[in-house]
Amino acid sequence: MSKPRAVVLVSGGMDSCVTAAIAHLQYNCAFLHVNYGQRTERRELKAFHALADYYGVEHRLIADLTHLKSIGGSSLTDISMKVATADPETLFHSKHNDIPTSYVPFRNANILSVAVSWAEVVGAEQIFIGAVEEDSSGYPDCRKEFYDAFNSVIRLGTKPETTISINTPVIQLKKSEIVQRGMELHAPFHLTWSCYTNEDRACGVCDSCALRLRAFQIAGIEDPIPYILKPDYR
Amino acid sequence: MSKPRAVVLVSGGMDSCVTAAIAHLQYNCAFLHVNYGQRTERRELKAFHALADYYGVEHRLIADLTHLKSIGGSSLTDISMKVATADPETLFHSKHNDIPTSYVPFRNANILSVAVSWAEVVGAEQIFIGAVEEDSSGYPDCRKEFYDAFNSVIRLGTKPETTISINTPVIQLKKSEIVQRGMELHAPFHLTWSCYTNEDRACGVCDSCALRLRAFQIAGIEDPIPYILKPDYR
Repeated sequence: MSKPRAVVLVSGGMDSCVTAAIAHLQYNCAFLHVNYGQRTERRELKAFHALADYYGVEHRLIADLTHLKSIGGSSLTDISMKVATADPETLFHSKHNDIPTSYVPFRNANILSVAVSWAEVVGAEQIFIGAVEEDSSGYPDCRKEFYDAFNSVIRLGTKPETTISINTPVIQLKKSEIVQRGMELHAPFHLTWSCYTNEDRACGVCDSCALRLRAFQIAGIEDPIPYILKPDYR
Repeated sequence: MSKPRAVVLVSGGMDSCVTAAIAHLQYNCAFLHVNYGQRTERRELKAFHALADYYGVEHRLIADLTHLKSIGGSSLTDISMKVATADPETLFHSKHNDIPTSYVPFRNANILSVAVSWAEVVGAEQIFIGAVEEDSSGYPDCRKEFYDAFNSVIRLGTKPETTISINTPVIQLKKSEIVQRGMELHAPFHLTWSCYTNEDRACGVCDSCALRLRAFQIAGIEDPIPYILKPDYR
């Protein structure tokens, strides 16, 4: 019997890589990548195709949401805003009362909407997304309640016979647990990219690098990608 | 005191025209138009700008969602599919058990997501959309429950201090009542476009033309745009 189809959102970072590894176990995967005018899109797209090649995924869609860059409001898309250097105290220990400047307004709803449109046409019943809630930057659209609410919107906004739901397999894991899960599944971390600012060697000091490096350090595993700086974040 | 800001979704059709007329009464409006690769986009965009000029709206955003055309699955975006000629029996009297081929999968969630991203950055508290539930083509993403669920997603997926909600002022009206409301508000119907297939003279026989012509006929008002055919749909 052939595997059921799933759409997997693949940014090219470590969380989406492990999510893809998990989805690949049970599903015939279609990979979706979104260009929303982020600074490192060229590098992310390279990681996306490398991951798709690794998993032998033929069905690939790159959606262009560059109006999110026109809209602005985020240091990831507005080059006049500075990408903050990670403040470990705030990043690792706060309750995220302040949303970081790297928040792209309502980004994940835009991305999920594309995924649902595609899933409905290709007959996929699951949409995998590597959102992480606890051990994250504190974006509002990475919380479990957000995805639960989005599932209601999918149910009400698609054809009666359509059944699509969002699958967030790593949402409750700590980032170090995601590294461990990825190692168990032989996830190709060497093909991924997470840095918010650089495309050749990761900066090591933006929020995304800090969360990633700390995860590998706590897991006791060497992160295989090149960094300019590798602070000890433990 | 200056008016609060609202984002208004303006396709260029009669429902969004009357919705804009209603929003204009109380809000400083920003107009959003979406190009999703629909057949008549060139004509719709002309109507959008004409309506924005009429209401003196400077803040305009045209978002490109042409991946919805790549995804396909709709006669509005896939030119290999035929746009159905309206079947009055089904269109005006059925309970819409069958979703018409003009349904663009999950289109309105894609459009609303852009609107929310924009609204959050420009500080708009309302998003106006001219969805019509009862007297419509039966699209799932035009129902009130869909918008209620989307409001939950907005609340959970944006910053804690952000308060944005969707306003659907014509959703419960019959199309003929929308015509009447538009006449009261001096809505510029002559600038609008609704036809699914043509860009110079409306066909008069697609679902969108049939619903529109019937609305004007029941309201006893002459539709000011040019038609190739004007069947009596009453």
